[in-house]
Amino acid sequence: MKIIIKNSLSQKKLIELFKRPAQNNNSIKEKVSKIIYDVKKNGHKSVLKYAKKFDGLNSDSILITKKYLNEQSKIIDIKLERAIDVAYNNIYKFHIKQIPKTINVETQKGIVCEKKYLPIESVGLYIPGGSAVLFSTLLMLGIPAKIAGCKRIVVCSPVKNEIDPALAYVAKKIGIEEFYSVGGAHAISMLAYGTEQVKKVDKIFGPGNQFVTLAKQLISIDNDGSIIDMPAGPSEVLIIADKFANPSFVAADLLSQAEHGIDSQVILLTDDINLAKNVLAEINKQLKTLPKKEIANKCLKKSFILIVDDLNDAVKLSNNYAPEHLIINVKNINSVKTKIKNAGSVFLGSYSPESVGDYASGTNHSLPTYGYAKSIGGVDVLSFMKSITFQKLTKKGLKNLSSTVIEMAEAENLQAHANAIKVRLK
Amino acid sequence: MKIIIKNSLSQKKLIELFKRPAQNNNSIKEKVSKIIYDVKKNGHKSVLKYAKKFDGLNSDSILITKKYLNEQSKIIDIKLERAIDVAYNNIYKFHIKQIPKTINVETQKGIVCEKKYLPIESVGLYIPGGSAVLFSTLLMLGIPAKIAGCKRIVVCSPVKNEIDPALAYVAKKIGIEEFYSVGGAHAISMLAYGTEQVKKVDKIFGPGNQFVTLAKQLISIDNDGSIIDMPAGPSEVLIIADKFANPSFVAADLLSQAEHGIDSQVILLTDDINLAKNVLAEINKQLKTLPKKEIANKCLKKSFILIVDDLNDAVKLSNNYAPEHLIINVKNINSVKTKIKNAGSVFLGSYSPESVGDYASGTNHSLPTYGYAKSIGGVDVLSFMKSITFQKLTKKGLKNLSSTVIEMAEAENLQAHANAIKVRLK
Repeated sequence: MKIIIKNSLSQKKLIELFKRPAQNNNSIKEKVSKIIYDVKKNGHKSVLKYAKKFDGLNSDSILITKKYLNEQSKIIDIKLERAIDVAYNNIYKFHIKQIPKTINVETQKGIVCEKKYLPIESVGLYIPGGSAVLFSTLLMLGIPAKIAGCKRIVVCSPVKNEIDPALAYVAKKIGIEEFYSVGGAHAISMLAYGTEQVKKVDKIFGPGNQFVTLAKQLISIDNDGSIIDMPAGPSEVLIIADKFANPSFVAADLLSQAEHGIDSQVILLTDDINLAKNVLAEINKQLKTLPKKEIANKCLKKSFILIVDDLNDAVKLSNNYAPEHLIINVKNINSVKTKIKNAGSVFLGSYSPESVGDYASGTNHSLPTYGYAKSIGGVDVLSFMKSITFQKLTKKGLKNLSSTVIEMAEAENLQAHANAIKVRLK
Repeated sequence: MKIIIKNSLSQKKLIELFKRPAQNNNSIKEKVSKIIYDVKKNGHKSVLKYAKKFDGLNSDSILITKKYLNEQSKIIDIKLERAIDVAYNNIYKFHIKQIPKTINVETQKGIVCEKKYLPIESVGLYIPGGSAVLFSTLLMLGIPAKIAGCKRIVVCSPVKNEIDPALAYVAKKIGIEEFYSVGGAHAISMLAYGTEQVKKVDKIFGPGNQFVTLAKQLISIDNDGSIIDMPAGPSEVLIIADKFANPSFVAADLLSQAEHGIDSQVILLTDDINLAKNVLAEINKQLKTLPKKEIANKCLKKSFILIVDDLNDAVKLSNNYAPEHLIINVKNINSVKTKIKNAGSVFLGSYSPESVGDYASGTNHSLPTYGYAKSIGGVDVLSFMKSITFQKLTKKGLKNLSSTVIEMAEAENLQAHANAIKVRLK
């Protein structure tokens, strides 16, 4: 991890420094498009074909039965079970407060407008397999889905033929009724279009590898497909720290992001060169003990510590970068916090490492990456709901508004719109 | 418009009847992709090239100055000005109530989680030109953007070299500072990527023709692009009416949707064959007086009235179709209203025609089409904001949660995540 002095950089170099690597998926586009087309056209039999080929499925059924989920959930380690229970409760407590209220306004006498929130009826949750079983992702997606009141919650995960007890435990705890052992672009296609065996869903959530991500993007712009939670890129952390920060804490936070993958983005902004040096020393010390030291090391090689003019300068750079995770490890927390405009999830002070939010404090860990925090927030209860507006006018209410609507409709050359008022007031 | 008896149809025929026509834009995909690529690469000079070619721009400047907006706004017809003022107030009153509150929860002692909503800093509003100047769309997008607190609101519209006084008046009233006379796929590309003259925006809103729609879709899956408000298809209305409905009102509502374009979707569900017949007769009568009768007639030729078993049956079909606009013109409104699960905007009773919501009652008219009402609601204040979560743990709060996080992180093979806790509690 290199230390760079901001003042030594030109504006152009500075912009380049913060630029995320381009997400080039042109090489897999043809492959993914073919899978989508195939599943859309041929349904279950192609899902099965790809699941056997890519997910290592060795059965003709993709359904993980409730009975099997139940059995597996029972063999979970007791300490892990207790941990999941604590996390579940915290996540539940924070998300239950997110249920939006109906809004009701009489805009004029006799004109009542209402905005009501209803659950999306059926949703798909994608839980990646790969190097680790991400049962925490199922907590983060399943709990808000349940709170929102989604009737049908479908989980897809390339779990092969044996399901991890922790994942089974979470699925059971949330009350998942449909769980399919399918992953990849074919799982996304199955959720988006439906097959003879699995009905389509209205929205698809969850992280995944580049095949999953690209498939989600492609089905999201097909009107026969589904909408998706958010665009995705590699995970990121940006830390703002001053001379009061403990270098060993900062180093540990940088490493916990770096171990996610060599694509991870890891940035430290500080106004104190000594802190920077001490963090570097700490990183080298802590790195040695990590099982994933090689991944973390590769990631850190592309990462940087930037010495900024002052904390305001750091905030400006951070707002412009819009990090997925932002750790503010400074003495005067509030003076920085109030200036934050763009970030996914923010961790305040010395005792709020990112990993508490990743698992158990209560906040959601499905967050916008790649600068999308400028435009969208992380997954929440509202992500699993949609609003409907209602309006009711009395005859008098309509009469009072009639000249307004007629005037505007006629100015837009929409005579039939005006007529719909006129016929009612004859 | 044909009358069909539901019981005469097989299940398969019924599904086909409600199927929206496929949105095939393959023929323009190459063209649109080329424009996007060109603007992304060559910036302002390609925007200018396309604006001259497609929008009829005959100047080298795309900026509509505030001075000119101001001048044009003054020559608005006084009756239209008053109408816009009324509409503005109603839309404002309904939308100001939509500002979300900060959520603050202490999930465990010493662990405080917060969800705060902030404006998206810069947004682009696309206002179509074409057959009519849609100043109402600028009201519907500009008011919530302003209420949300978006710092930079950029409007693009192919207004050529003369701007309609009503559009200028609305722009001035809302306080638009950046207005560009550019339309089509090149306007969307300019907003998504930015040029030397116009900075990129974080989210793009607004309807448009198929070039605009496709451009929005394509830039929304490019990580260098922007996110967009929603997918788009042709406008739709579904009416549920019983024998108590006035056929002339129902006919006028069907026609006001039909005049939008030959692609419009217009459906009436009723349990009363006499109403159906009377509506048909009324349509033929009213149609004659309409300036857009040819468009409306073409649209109606592909539309249908379906005689259903009862109102419950109608609601079920409507929920499954998820119409953009739903008019419930029945005696017992509430028994139907409470069963509505999927719709964009719902109009209740005899005196709530769609056109009041299109213009002036207070609700937004930017609504999900093509069945997307199953997954998303219409544009609102929240569409112009994003949430950020914050969390702060005390040392004790972290200690209490430590074994939970460490247990879960280690179960997911993320040792550095566990370490970030351990170093803090040494």
